[in-house]
Amino acid sequence: MASPPRALSVSFFVLPLLALLINPATSIRTSIIKLPRSDGSRSAAADTYCESWRLAVETNNAGTWDVLPSSCVDSVARYLNGDQYGSDYDVIVDYALAFAKTVKISGDGKDVWIFDIDETLLTNIGYYKNHGYGVSRSEPFDSKSFNEIGHGIPQSQQRMYNALKKLGFTIVLLTGRDEDQRNVTETNLRDVGYSGWERLILRGPDDQGKSATNYKSEQRSKLIDQGFKIHGNTGDQWSDLLGFAVADRSFKVPNPMYYIP
Amino acid sequence: MASPPRALSVSFFVLPLLALLINPATSIRTSIIKLPRSDGSRSAAADTYCESWRLAVETNNAGTWDVLPSSCVDSVARYLNGDQYGSDYDVIVDYALAFAKTVKISGDGKDVWIFDIDETLLTNIGYYKNHGYGVSRSEPFDSKSFNEIGHGIPQSQQRMYNALKKLGFTIVLLTGRDEDQRNVTETNLRDVGYSGWERLILRGPDDQGKSATNYKSEQRSKLIDQGFKIHGNTGDQWSDLLGFAVADRSFKVPNPMYYIP
Repeated sequence: MASPPRALSVSFFVLPLLALLINPATSIRTSIIKLPRSDGSRSAAADTYCESWRLAVETNNAGTWDVLPSSCVDSVARYLNGDQYGSDYDVIVDYALAFAKTVKISGDGKDVWIFDIDETLLTNIGYYKNHGYGVSRSEPFDSKSFNEIGHGIPQSQQRMYNALKKLGFTIVLLTGRDEDQRNVTETNLRDVGYSGWERLILRGPDDQGKSATNYKSEQRSKLIDQGFKIHGNTGDQWSDLLGFAVADRSFKVPNPMYYIP
Repeated sequence: MASPPRALSVSFFVLPLLALLINPATSIRTSIIKLPRSDGSRSAAADTYCESWRLAVETNNAGTWDVLPSSCVDSVARYLNGDQYGSDYDVIVDYALAFAKTVKISGDGKDVWIFDIDETLLTNIGYYKNHGYGVSRSEPFDSKSFNEIGHGIPQSQQRMYNALKKLGFTIVLLTGRDEDQRNVTETNLRDVGYSGWERLILRGPDDQGKSATNYKSEQRSKLIDQGFKIHGNTGDQWSDLLGFAVADRSFKVPNPMYYIP
Protein backbone atom coordinates (compact mmCIF):
# COMPACT_ATOMS: atom_id res chain seq x y z
CA MET A 1 0.00 0.00 0.00
CA ALA A 2 1.52 3.29 -1.04
CA SER A 3 0.94 6.20 1.30
CA PRO A 4 -0.40 9.24 -0.52
CA PRO A 5 2.30 11.40 -2.06
CA ARG A 6 1.95 14.72 -0.28
CA ALA A 7 2.62 16.78 -3.36
CA LEU A 8 -0.71 15.63 -4.73
CA SER A 9 -2.67 17.12 -1.90
CA VAL A 10 -2.14 20.57 -3.34
CA SER A 11 -2.72 19.51 -6.93
CA PHE A 12 -6.49 19.29 -6.67
CA PHE A 13 -6.97 22.63 -8.31
CA VAL A 14 -4.23 22.07 -10.86
CA LEU A 15 -5.48 18.95 -12.58
CA PRO A 16 -9.24 19.09 -12.55
CA LEU A 17 -9.78 18.66 -16.26
CA LEU A 18 -7.99 15.38 -16.06
CA ALA A 19 -9.95 14.47 -12.99
CA LEU A 20 -13.12 14.71 -14.98
CA LEU A 21 -12.14 12.09 -17.45
CA ILE A 22 -13.22 9.23 -15.23
CA ASN A 23 -16.15 8.74 -12.97
CA PRO A 24 -15.18 6.64 -9.97
CA ALA A 25 -18.46 6.76 -8.09
CA THR A 26 -20.55 5.44 -10.92
CA SER A 27 -17.85 2.89 -11.43
CA ILE A 28 -18.12 1.71 -7.84
CA ARG A 29 -21.49 0.37 -8.85
CA THR A 30 -20.67 -0.91 -12.29
CA SER A 31 -16.97 -1.73 -12.01
CA ILE A 32 -16.64 -0.06 -15.38
CA ILE A 33 -15.43 3.50 -15.65
CA LYS A 34 -17.65 5.73 -17.75
CA LEU A 35 -15.58 8.45 -19.28
CA PRO A 36 -17.06 11.73 -20.34
CA ARG A 37 -15.10 13.24 -23.20
CA SER A 38 -14.83 16.86 -24.08
CA ASP A 39 -16.34 17.58 -27.46
CA GLY A 40 -13.99 20.52 -27.72
CA SER A 41 -16.76 23.08 -28.04
CA ARG A 42 -16.75 26.40 -26.25
CA SER A 43 -19.31 29.07 -26.77
CA ALA A 44 -21.30 31.45 -24.62
CA ALA A 45 -24.36 29.30 -25.25
CA ALA A 46 -22.50 26.17 -24.15
CA ASP A 47 -21.23 27.92 -21.01
CA THR A 48 -24.75 29.06 -20.17
CA TYR A 49 -26.10 25.56 -20.69
CA CYS A 50 -23.34 23.95 -18.63
CA GLU A 51 -23.94 26.37 -15.77
CA SER A 52 -27.63 25.41 -15.88
CA TRP A 53 -26.67 21.74 -15.94
CA ARG A 54 -24.49 22.18 -12.85
CA LEU A 55 -27.31 23.98 -11.05
CA ALA A 56 -29.72 21.15 -11.98
CA VAL A 57 -27.26 18.63 -10.56
CA GLU A 58 -26.56 20.54 -7.35
CA THR A 59 -30.27 21.10 -6.66
CA ASN A 60 -31.04 17.42 -7.41
CA ASN A 61 -33.36 18.54 -10.20
CA ALA A 62 -31.32 16.34 -12.53
CA GLY A 63 -32.00 13.25 -10.45
CA THR A 64 -29.91 10.22 -11.36
CA TRP A 65 -27.25 10.95 -13.94
CA ASP A 66 -24.36 9.00 -15.34
CA VAL A 67 -21.61 11.06 -16.93
CA LEU A 68 -21.49 14.80 -17.43
CA PRO A 69 -22.50 16.04 -20.87
CA SER A 70 -19.52 15.91 -23.21
CA SER A 71 -20.10 19.56 -24.10
CA CYS A 72 -19.58 20.45 -20.42
CA VAL A 73 -16.33 18.67 -19.62
CA ASP A 74 -14.25 21.79 -20.27
CA SER A 75 -16.73 24.05 -18.50
CA VAL A 76 -16.74 21.88 -15.39
CA ALA A 77 -12.95 21.76 -15.47
CA ARG A 78 -12.83 25.55 -15.53
CA TYR A 79 -15.32 25.62 -12.65
CA LEU A 80 -13.14 23.37 -10.53
CA ASN A 81 -9.90 24.98 -11.62
CA GLY A 82 -10.99 28.57 -11.11
CA ASP A 83 -12.19 30.44 -8.05
CA GLN A 84 -15.85 29.42 -8.23
CA TYR A 85 -15.66 25.94 -6.75
CA GLY A 86 -13.68 27.10 -3.73
CA SER A 87 -16.00 30.04 -3.28
CA ASP A 88 -19.08 27.83 -3.50
CA TYR A 89 -17.60 25.55 -0.87
CA ASP A 90 -16.66 28.44 1.35
CA VAL A 91 -20.12 30.03 1.32
CA ILE A 92 -21.68 26.68 2.27
CA VAL A 93 -19.25 26.37 5.16
CA ASP A 94 -20.22 29.86 6.32
CA TYR A 95 -23.91 28.90 6.34
CA ALA A 96 -23.18 25.59 8.06
CA LEU A 97 -21.15 27.25 10.80
CA ALA A 98 -23.76 29.99 11.25
CA PHE A 99 -26.31 27.23 11.88
CA ALA A 100 -23.93 25.23 14.05
CA LYS A 101 -23.44 28.22 16.37
CA THR A 102 -27.20 28.26 17.06
CA VAL A 103 -27.16 24.66 18.32
CA LYS A 104 -27.15 24.25 22.07
CA ILE A 105 -24.46 21.69 22.84
CA SER A 106 -25.59 19.55 25.75
CA GLY A 107 -22.11 18.46 26.82
CA ASP A 108 -23.03 14.77 26.94
CA GLY A 109 -21.27 14.04 23.66
CA LYS A 110 -24.53 13.23 21.91
CA ASP A 111 -24.62 16.28 19.61
CA VAL A 112 -23.51 14.91 16.26
CA TRP A 113 -22.34 16.36 12.97
CA ILE A 114 -21.94 13.82 10.18
CA PHE A 115 -19.48 14.10 7.33
CA ASP A 116 -19.21 12.03 4.21
CA ILE A 117 -15.57 11.43 3.18
CA ASP A 118 -14.89 11.24 -0.57
CA GLU A 119 -15.29 14.59 -2.31
CA THR A 120 -16.42 15.99 1.06
CA LEU A 121 -13.38 15.71 3.35
CA LEU A 122 -11.06 14.09 0.83
CA THR A 123 -10.64 14.35 -2.90
CA ASN A 124 -9.38 11.62 -5.15
CA ILE A 125 -7.23 13.33 -7.68
CA GLY A 126 -4.44 10.89 -6.91
CA TYR A 127 -6.55 8.07 -8.26
CA TYR A 128 -7.10 9.91 -11.47
CA LYS A 129 -3.39 10.52 -11.84
CA ASN A 130 -2.41 6.91 -11.22
CA HIS A 131 -4.93 5.68 -13.73
CA GLY A 132 -3.78 7.77 -16.65
CA TYR A 133 -6.74 10.11 -16.23
CA GLY A 134 -9.08 7.69 -17.91
CA VAL A 135 -7.67 6.91 -21.31
CA SER A 136 -10.13 4.08 -21.82
CA ARG A 137 -13.88 4.10 -21.44
CA SER A 138 -13.86 0.58 -20.05
CA GLU A 139 -10.97 0.45 -17.61
CA PRO A 140 -12.04 -1.66 -14.61
CA PHE A 141 -12.45 0.42 -11.50
CA ASP A 142 -9.90 -0.41 -8.81
CA SER A 143 -11.69 0.53 -5.61
CA LYS A 144 -8.77 -0.49 -3.42
CA SER A 145 -6.36 1.76 -5.22
CA PHE A 146 -8.98 4.50 -5.35
CA ASN A 147 -9.41 4.48 -1.59
CA GLU A 148 -5.71 4.31 -0.83
CA ILE A 149 -4.92 7.65 -2.33
CA GLY A 150 -7.56 10.06 -1.13
CA HIS A 151 -6.39 13.59 -0.42
CA GLY A 152 -7.73 16.51 1.48
CA ILE A 153 -9.89 19.20 0.04
CA PRO A 154 -8.00 22.32 1.00
CA GLN A 155 -9.09 25.07 3.32
CA SER A 156 -12.88 25.31 3.44
CA GLN A 157 -13.73 21.85 4.65
CA GLN A 158 -10.93 21.65 7.18
CA ARG A 159 -12.07 25.02 8.45
CA MET A 160 -15.57 23.59 8.89
CA TYR A 161 -14.39 20.35 10.43
CA ASN A 162 -12.17 22.07 12.96
CA ALA A 163 -14.72 24.73 13.84
CA LEU A 164 -17.39 22.11 14.52
CA LYS A 165 -15.04 20.15 16.75
CA LYS A 166 -14.24 23.34 18.64
CA LEU A 167 -17.95 24.09 19.08
CA GLY A 168 -18.28 20.73 20.81
CA PHE A 169 -19.94 18.60 18.15
CA THR A 170 -19.28 14.88 18.11
CA ILE A 171 -17.95 14.13 14.65
CA VAL A 172 -19.18 11.01 12.87
CA LEU A 173 -17.73 10.04 9.50
CA LEU A 174 -20.14 8.01 7.39
CA THR A 175 -18.70 6.71 4.14
CA GLY A 176 -19.67 4.34 1.36
CA ARG A 177 -16.18 2.86 1.50
CA ASP A 178 -15.98 -0.77 2.65
CA GLU A 179 -14.95 -1.91 6.13
CA ASP A 180 -11.75 -3.44 4.77
CA GLN A 181 -10.63 0.06 3.83
CA ARG A 182 -10.75 1.27 7.44
CA ASN A 183 -7.02 1.52 8.02
CA VAL A 184 -6.20 3.21 4.74
CA THR A 185 -9.09 5.62 5.19
CA GLU A 186 -7.86 6.62 8.64
CA THR A 187 -4.42 7.12 7.13
CA ASN A 188 -5.87 9.26 4.33
CA LEU A 189 -7.67 11.45 6.85
CA ARG A 190 -4.76 11.87 9.26
CA ASP A 191 -2.31 12.53 6.43
CA VAL A 192 -4.17 15.68 5.46
CA GLY A 193 -4.73 16.82 9.04
CA TYR A 194 -8.10 15.50 10.22
CA SER A 195 -8.29 14.12 13.73
CA GLY A 196 -10.64 13.70 16.64
CA TRP A 197 -13.62 12.00 14.98
CA GLU A 198 -15.75 9.89 17.32
CA ARG A 199 -16.74 7.22 14.82
CA LEU A 200 -15.81 6.14 11.35
CA ILE A 201 -18.65 4.12 9.86
CA LEU A 202 -17.91 2.05 6.74
CA ARG A 203 -20.00 -0.46 4.81
CA GLY A 204 -19.97 -3.81 6.58
CA PRO A 205 -20.94 -7.21 5.15
CA ASP A 206 -24.65 -6.52 5.80
CA ASP A 207 -24.52 -3.24 3.87
CA GLN A 208 -23.36 -4.64 0.55
CA GLY A 209 -25.72 -4.00 -2.33
CA LYS A 210 -27.71 -1.34 -0.51
CA SER A 211 -28.16 2.03 -2.15
CA ALA A 212 -26.10 4.77 -0.53
CA THR A 213 -29.33 6.47 0.54
CA ASN A 214 -30.58 3.38 2.37
CA TYR A 215 -27.26 2.42 3.88
CA LYS A 216 -26.61 5.92 5.19
CA SER A 217 -30.18 6.39 6.43
CA GLU A 218 -29.97 3.12 8.35
CA GLN A 219 -26.71 4.16 9.95
CA ARG A 220 -28.14 7.53 10.96
CA SER A 221 -31.17 5.76 12.39
CA LYS A 222 -28.91 3.57 14.53
CA LEU A 223 -27.17 6.65 15.88
CA ILE A 224 -30.52 8.15 16.84
CA ASP A 225 -31.50 4.88 18.54
CA GLN A 226 -28.30 5.19 20.55
CA GLY A 227 -29.34 8.60 21.79
CA PHE A 228 -27.39 10.80 19.43
CA LYS A 229 -28.94 13.96 18.02
CA ILE A 230 -27.94 14.54 14.41
CA HIS A 231 -27.84 18.30 14.06
CA GLY A 232 -25.88 18.63 10.84
CA ASN A 233 -24.78 16.54 7.89
CA THR A 234 -22.38 17.44 5.09
CA GLY A 235 -21.97 15.52 1.86
CA ASP A 236 -21.30 15.95 -1.84
CA GLN A 237 -24.13 13.54 -2.80
CA TRP A 238 -27.84 13.89 -2.16
CA SER A 239 -27.69 10.21 -1.11
CA ASP A 240 -25.53 11.38 1.82
CA LEU A 241 -28.32 13.65 2.99
CA LEU A 242 -31.78 12.34 2.00
CA GLY A 243 -33.77 9.25 2.98
CA PHE A 244 -34.85 8.84 6.60
CA ALA A 245 -33.35 9.86 9.95
CA VAL A 246 -32.11 13.01 8.25
CA ALA A 247 -30.17 15.71 10.07
CA ASP A 248 -31.79 18.91 11.29
CA ARG A 249 -29.83 20.70 8.57
CA SER A 250 -28.10 19.13 5.60
CA PHE A 251 -25.39 20.83 3.57
CA LYS A 252 -24.77 19.73 -0.01
CA VAL A 253 -21.26 20.53 -1.16
CA PRO A 254 -20.60 20.68 -4.89
CA ASN A 255 -19.71 17.69 -7.01
CA PRO A 256 -20.29 18.07 -10.74
CA MET A 257 -18.17 14.99 -11.49
CA TYR A 258 -20.27 11.98 -10.54
CA TYR A 259 -23.54 10.88 -8.96
CA ILE A 260 -24.17 8.10 -6.44
CA PRO A 261 -27.80 7.02 -5.91
CA MET B 1 -59.74 45.46 -9.63
CA ALA B 2 -57.54 46.29 -12.56
CA SER B 3 -56.95 43.51 -15.01
CA PRO B 4 -53.25 43.02 -15.70
CA PRO B 5 -51.90 45.27 -18.44
CA ARG B 6 -50.77 42.89 -21.14
CA ALA B 7 -47.67 44.86 -22.00
CA LEU B 8 -46.25 43.93 -18.62
CA SER B 9 -46.33 40.23 -19.34
CA VAL B 10 -43.36 40.59 -21.65
CA SER B 11 -41.50 42.99 -19.41
CA PHE B 12 -40.29 40.37 -16.97
CA PHE B 13 -36.85 40.30 -18.47
CA VAL B 14 -36.73 44.02 -19.00
CA LEU B 15 -37.20 45.25 -15.48
CA PRO B 16 -35.64 42.71 -13.19
CA LEU B 17 -33.29 45.05 -11.38
CA LEU B 18 -36.29 46.99 -10.25
CA ALA B 19 -38.02 43.79 -9.31
CA LEU B 20 -35.27 43.07 -6.85
CA LEU B 21 -35.82 46.18 -4.86
CA ILE B 22 -38.63 44.72 -2.82
CA ASN B 23 -39.23 41.37 -1.31
CA PRO B 24 -42.92 40.47 -1.45
CA ALA B 25 -42.77 36.97 -0.03
CA THR B 26 -41.00 37.93 3.13
CA SER B 27 -43.42 40.77 3.34
CA ILE B 28 -46.38 38.43 3.19
CA ARG B 29 -45.28 37.31 6.62
CA THR B 30 -44.23 40.61 8.09
CA SER B 31 -46.40 43.09 6.18
CA ILE B 32 -43.25 45.18 5.91
CA ILE B 33 -41.25 45.17 2.72
CA LYS B 34 -37.57 44.58 3.25
CA LEU B 35 -35.67 46.23 0.48
CA PRO B 36 -32.25 45.08 -0.52
CA ARG B 37 -30.22 47.93 -1.90
CA SER B 38 -27.37 47.66 -4.31
CA ASP B 39 -24.11 48.81 -2.75
CA GLY B 40 -22.94 49.70 -6.25
CA SER B 41 -19.96 47.40 -6.14
CA ARG B 42 -18.95 45.23 -9.04
CA SER B 43 -15.84 43.14 -9.09
CA ALA B 44 -14.89 39.64 -10.16
CA ALA B 45 -14.69 38.68 -6.49
CA ALA B 46 -18.19 40.04 -5.86
CA ASP B 47 -19.56 38.20 -8.89
CA THR B 48 -17.95 34.97 -7.69
CA TYR B 49 -19.39 35.43 -4.21
CA CYS B 50 -22.85 36.27 -5.52
CA GLU B 51 -22.88 33.21 -7.74
CA SER B 52 -21.96 31.13 -4.68
CA TRP B 53 -24.72 32.83 -2.71
CA ARG B 54 -27.27 31.99 -5.41
CA LEU B 55 -26.12 28.36 -5.43
CA ALA B 56 -26.43 28.23 -1.63
CA VAL B 57 -29.98 29.58 -1.89
CA GLU B 58 -31.05 27.26 -4.69
CA THR B 59 -29.66 24.17 -2.94
CA ASN B 60 -31.29 25.21 0.36
CA ASN B 61 -27.85 25.32 1.97
CA ALA B 62 -28.61 28.90 2.96
CA GLY B 63 -31.73 27.87 4.86
CA THR B 64 -33.95 30.75 5.92
CA TRP B 65 -32.86 34.11 4.53
CA ASP B 66 -34.39 37.53 4.50
CA VAL B 67 -33.11 39.88 1.81
CA LEU B 68 -30.39 39.27 -0.71
CA PRO B 69 -26.95 40.64 0.16
CA SER B 70 -26.71 44.28 -0.90
CA SER B 71 -23.51 43.47 -2.79
CA CYS B 72 -25.49 40.99 -4.92
CA VAL B 73 -28.46 43.09 -6.02
CA ASP B 74 -26.82 44.02 -9.33
CA SER B 75 -25.49 40.52 -9.87
CA VAL B 76 -28.91 38.95 -9.33
CA ALA B 77 -30.44 41.54 -11.66
CA ARG B 78 -27.95 40.58 -14.37
CA TYR B 79 -28.76 36.93 -13.74
CA LEU B 80 -32.48 37.51 -14.24
CA ASN B 81 -32.00 39.93 -17.10
CA GLY B 82 -29.51 37.85 -19.07
CA ASP B 83 -29.78 34.40 -20.57
CA GLN B 84 -28.89 32.41 -17.47
CA TYR B 85 -32.21 32.48 -15.64
CA GLY B 86 -34.17 31.35 -18.69
CA SER B 87 -31.59 28.68 -19.41
CA ASP B 88 -31.69 27.42 -15.82
CA TYR B 89 -35.46 27.22 -16.02
CA ASP B 90 -35.35 25.45 -19.35
CA VAL B 91 -32.91 22.76 -18.23
CA ILE B 92 -35.10 22.03 -15.21
CA VAL B 93 -38.12 21.70 -17.47
CA ASP B 94 -36.18 19.26 -19.66
CA TYR B 95 -35.38 17.10 -16.63
CA ALA B 96 -38.95 17.31 -15.35
CA LEU B 97 -40.41 16.27 -18.69
CA ALA B 98 -37.87 13.46 -19.08
CA PHE B 99 -39.08 12.13 -15.73
CA ALA B 100 -42.74 12.75 -16.57
CA LYS B 101 -42.44 10.62 -19.69
CA THR B 102 -41.38 7.64 -17.55
CA VAL B 103 -44.57 7.82 -15.46
CA LYS B 104 -47.25 5.31 -16.39
CA ILE B 105 -50.48 7.28 -16.56
CA SER B 106 -53.32 5.13 -15.27
CA GLY B 107 -56.07 6.96 -17.11
CA ASP B 108 -58.23 7.31 -13.97
CA GLY B 109 -57.30 10.96 -13.54
CA LYS B 110 -55.41 10.28 -10.32
CA ASP B 111 -51.91 10.96 -11.65
CA VAL B 112 -51.09 14.41 -10.34
CA TRP B 113 -48.50 17.05 -11.04
CA ILE B 114 -48.52 19.98 -8.61
CA PHE B 115 -47.50 23.51 -9.46
CA ASP B 116 -46.96 26.45 -7.19
CA ILE B 117 -48.13 29.74 -8.76
CA ASP B 118 -46.13 32.88 -7.87
CA GLU B 119 -42.64 32.86 -9.39
CA THR B 120 -43.44 29.38 -10.72
CA LEU B 121 -46.30 29.85 -13.20
CA LEU B 122 -46.66 33.60 -12.75
CA THR B 123 -44.26 36.40 -12.00
CA ASN B 124 -45.12 39.58 -10.15
CA ILE B 125 -43.21 42.28 -11.93
CA GLY B 126 -46.42 44.28 -12.22
CA TYR B 127 -46.57 44.61 -8.47
CA TYR B 128 -43.08 45.97 -8.40
CA LYS B 129 -43.95 48.49 -11.06
CA ASN B 130 -47.10 49.72 -9.31
CA HIS B 131 -45.23 50.17 -6.06
CA GLY B 132 -42.47 52.37 -7.41
CA TYR B 133 -40.03 49.47 -7.36
CA GLY B 134 -39.55 49.72 -3.65
CA VAL B 135 -38.49 53.24 -2.90
CA SER B 136 -39.04 52.81 0.81
CA ARG B 137 -37.71 50.08 3.06
CA SER B 138 -40.88 50.04 5.12
CA GLU B 139 -43.73 50.29 2.65
CA PRO B 140 -46.58 48.09 3.89
CA PHE B 141 -47.06 45.05 1.70
CA ASP B 142 -50.36 45.11 -0.20
CA SER B 143 -51.10 41.43 -0.72
CA LYS B 144 -54.37 42.13 -2.56
CA SER B 145 -52.68 44.36 -5.09
CA PHE B 146 -49.76 41.95 -5.33
CA ASN B 147 -52.03 39.08 -6.26
CA GLU B 148 -54.09 41.03 -8.74
CA ILE B 149 -51.26 41.66 -11.12
CA GLY B 150 -49.41 38.40 -11.53
CA HIS B 151 -48.05 37.67 -14.96
CA GLY B 152 -46.80 34.64 -16.78
CA ILE B 153 -43.24 33.48 -16.83
CA PRO B 154 -42.55 33.17 -20.52
CA GLN B 155 -41.81 30.06 -22.48
CA SER B 156 -40.23 27.41 -20.27
CA GLN B 157 -42.93 26.99 -17.70
CA GLN B 158 -45.80 27.13 -20.14
CA ARG B 159 -43.96 24.52 -22.19
CA MET B 160 -43.79 22.34 -19.09
CA TYR B 161 -47.39 22.94 -18.09
CA ASN B 162 -48.76 22.15 -21.53
CA ALA B 163 -46.56 19.10 -22.04
CA LEU B 164 -47.66 17.62 -18.72
CA LYS B 165 -51.31 18.17 -19.58
CA LYS B 166 -50.74 16.47 -22.93
CA LEU B 167 -49.05 13.51 -21.21
CA GLY B 168 -52.24 13.04 -19.21
CA PHE B 169 -51.29 14.41 -15.81
CA THR B 170 -53.96 15.92 -13.62
CA ILE B 171 -52.77 19.43 -12.83
CA VAL B 172 -53.20 20.73 -9.28
CA LEU B 173 -52.25 24.30 -8.45
CA LEU B 174 -51.27 24.75 -4.81
CA THR B 175 -50.62 28.33 -3.77
CA GLY B 176 -50.01 30.30 -0.60
CA ARG B 177 -52.46 32.94 -1.84
CA ASP B 178 -55.66 33.27 0.19
CA GLU B 179 -59.03 31.84 -0.78
CA ASP B 180 -60.46 35.35 -1.32
CA GLN B 181 -57.97 35.74 -4.18
CA ARG B 182 -59.43 32.80 -6.11
CA ASN B 183 -61.11 34.80 -8.87
CA VAL B 184 -58.23 37.14 -9.50
CA THR B 185 -55.79 34.25 -9.48
CA GLU B 186 -57.83 32.40 -12.08
CA THR B 187 -57.92 35.58 -14.14
CA ASN B 188 -54.14 35.95 -13.81
CA LEU B 189 -53.60 32.40 -14.99
CA ARG B 190 -56.03 32.53 -17.91
CA ASP B 191 -54.73 35.93 -19.04
CA VAL B 192 -51.32 34.47 -19.74
CA GLY B 193 -52.62 31.30 -21.33
CA TYR B 194 -52.92 28.62 -18.65
CA SER B 195 -56.01 26.44 -18.70
CA GLY B 196 -57.22 22.98 -17.85
CA TRP B 197 -56.12 22.64 -14.23
CA GLU B 198 -58.16 20.21 -12.13
CA ARG B 199 -57.93 22.06 -8.83
CA LEU B 200 -56.77 25.39 -7.55
CA ILE B 201 -56.02 25.11 -3.83
CA LEU B 202 -55.67 28.35 -1.86
CA ARG B 203 -55.24 29.04 1.86
CA GLY B 204 -58.58 28.76 3.61
CA PRO B 205 -59.50 30.07 7.06
CA ASP B 206 -58.01 26.98 8.74
CA ASP B 207 -54.68 27.47 6.99
CA GLN B 208 -53.93 30.95 8.29
CA GLY B 209 -50.74 31.21 10.28
CA LYS B 210 -49.37 27.89 9.11
CA SER B 211 -45.92 27.78 7.56
CA ALA B 212 -45.97 27.23 3.82
CA THR B 213 -44.25 23.89 4.35
CA ASN B 214 -46.97 22.66 6.71
CA TYR B 215 -49.88 24.07 4.76
CA LYS B 216 -48.68 22.59 1.49
CA SER B 217 -47.75 19.24 3.04
CA GLU B 218 -51.22 18.98 4.57
CA GLN B 219 -52.86 19.72 1.24
CA ARG B 220 -50.72 17.13 -0.52
CA SER B 221 -51.60 14.64 2.19
CA LYS B 222 -55.31 15.27 1.59
CA LEU B 223 -54.83 14.60 -2.11
CA ILE B 224 -53.14 11.29 -1.34
CA ASP B 225 -55.99 10.38 1.04
CA GLN B 226 -58.34 11.02 -1.89
CA GLY B 227 -56.48 8.47 -3.99
CA PHE B 228 -54.28 10.80 -6.02
CA LYS B 229 -50.70 9.86 -6.77
CA ILE B 230 -48.40 12.88 -6.65
CA HIS B 231 -45.74 12.12 -9.21
CA GLY B 232 -44.24 15.56 -9.67
CA ASN B 233 -44.15 18.94 -7.97
CA THR B 234 -42.71 22.21 -9.23
CA GLY B 235 -42.07 25.28 -7.09
CA ASP B 236 -39.68 28.18 -6.63
CA GLN B 237 -39.54 27.68 -2.85
CA TRP B 238 -38.24 24.68 -0.90
CA SER B 239 -41.39 25.09 1.21
CA ASP B 240 -43.35 24.12 -1.91
CA LEU B 241 -41.50 20.83 -2.10
CA LEU B 242 -40.36 19.60 1.34
CA GLY B 243 -42.24 18.48 4.45
CA PHE B 244 -44.40 15.35 4.26
CA ALA B 245 -46.49 13.72 1.51
CA VAL B 246 -43.80 14.84 -0.92
CA ALA B 247 -43.96 14.09 -4.64
CA ASP B 248 -42.00 11.27 -6.23
CA ARG B 249 -39.87 13.95 -7.85
CA SER B 250 -39.67 17.61 -6.91
CA PHE B 251 -38.33 20.33 -9.17
CA LYS B 252 -37.00 23.54 -7.65
CA VAL B 253 -37.12 26.44 -10.09
CA PRO B 254 -34.88 29.44 -9.41
CA ASN B 255 -35.86 32.33 -7.20
CA PRO B 256 -32.99 34.46 -5.91
CA MET B 257 -35.38 37.25 -4.86
CA TYR B 258 -37.13 36.04 -1.73
CA TYR B 259 -37.57 33.11 0.64
CA ILE B 260 -40.76 31.71 2.15
CA PRO B 261 -40.39 29.25 5.06
